Amino acid sequence: MLVPLLSRIDHIGIACRDLETAIERYATFGLQVVSLEVNEEQGVREAMLQVGGTGSRPGYVQLLEPLGPDTPVGRFLARRGEGLHHVGYGVDDIAAALATLGVRGVRLLDERPRHGSMGASIAFLHPADLGGVLTELVQPAGPA
Amino acid sequence: MLVPLLSRIDHIGIACRDLETAIERYATFGLQVVSLEVNEEQGVREAMLQVGGTGSRPGYVQLLEPLGPDTPVGRFLARRGEGLHHVGYGVDDIAAALATLGVRGVRLLDERPRHGSMGASIAFLHPADLGGVLTELVQPAGPA
Repeated sequence: MLVPLLSRIDHIGIACRDLETAIERYATFGLQVVSLEVNEEQGVREAMLQVGGTGSRPGYVQLLEPLGPDTPVGRFLARRGEGLHHVGYGVDDIAAALATLGVRGVRLLDERPRHGSMGASIAFLHPADLGGVLTELVQPAGPA
Repeated sequence: MLVPLLSRIDHIGIACRDLETAIERYATFGLQVVSLEVNEEQGVREAMLQVGGTGSRPGYVQLLEPLGPDTPVGRFLARRGEGLHHVGYGVDDIAAALATLGVRGVRLLDERPRHGSMGASIAFLHPADLGGVLTELVQPAGPA
């Protein structure tokens, strides 16, 4: 058995056309926005909505509105419409996880971690090696 | 503020053509199968792979292979290919959650809970009210 690399489901990334409409939709479930940021590098405006989390680290619904049509999320919306975009898993040490996955033959979209929501270090893996699922590793800021 | 209905991200449902290939793929991350079942009602053979969960309740990757082309997951694969199919959120009381969401105007695909993985009670909500995301509520078997 291989050592588990993933500590938890960190978030579900959902592509939407209008962030405020999507936030309102999830308010139906009582979900609240805990972070709202623009990530120019990724071409998105994004909201993190906390799901549960008393005691352990919470999960998040991450709502993603593209900054323009010629961005990854903009192209996703044009091709597939609104819906599930990616899944993010928590890891304790993202550099070590990327090195291990590279050795195991998973293609990395990001060879090195970059800046994600709420100060996290993140990296994306190639969906072709993961059954069409765009997969993100997340090492949260501060204690993991 | 509305009372939160969702206690955690329970699982990510992923549609795949071949369950064994998909299980092998996720073994790259060290994820292990904890349950393997056939759900005739939903037309799937499915595997639950545990993600984390020391201390709190774990999350799962749920791999779904259709029992035939004329099933919901079979039609999904024909239309969109392999990939993210739905997201499941934990709730403490699924009957109460369905009643509350119905009042709030969310259309329910299941008016009453039915049988899900590992003895859970589940119900699906209409993706059209949730930005194209097929959404499932999950009340686990035993203590929530």
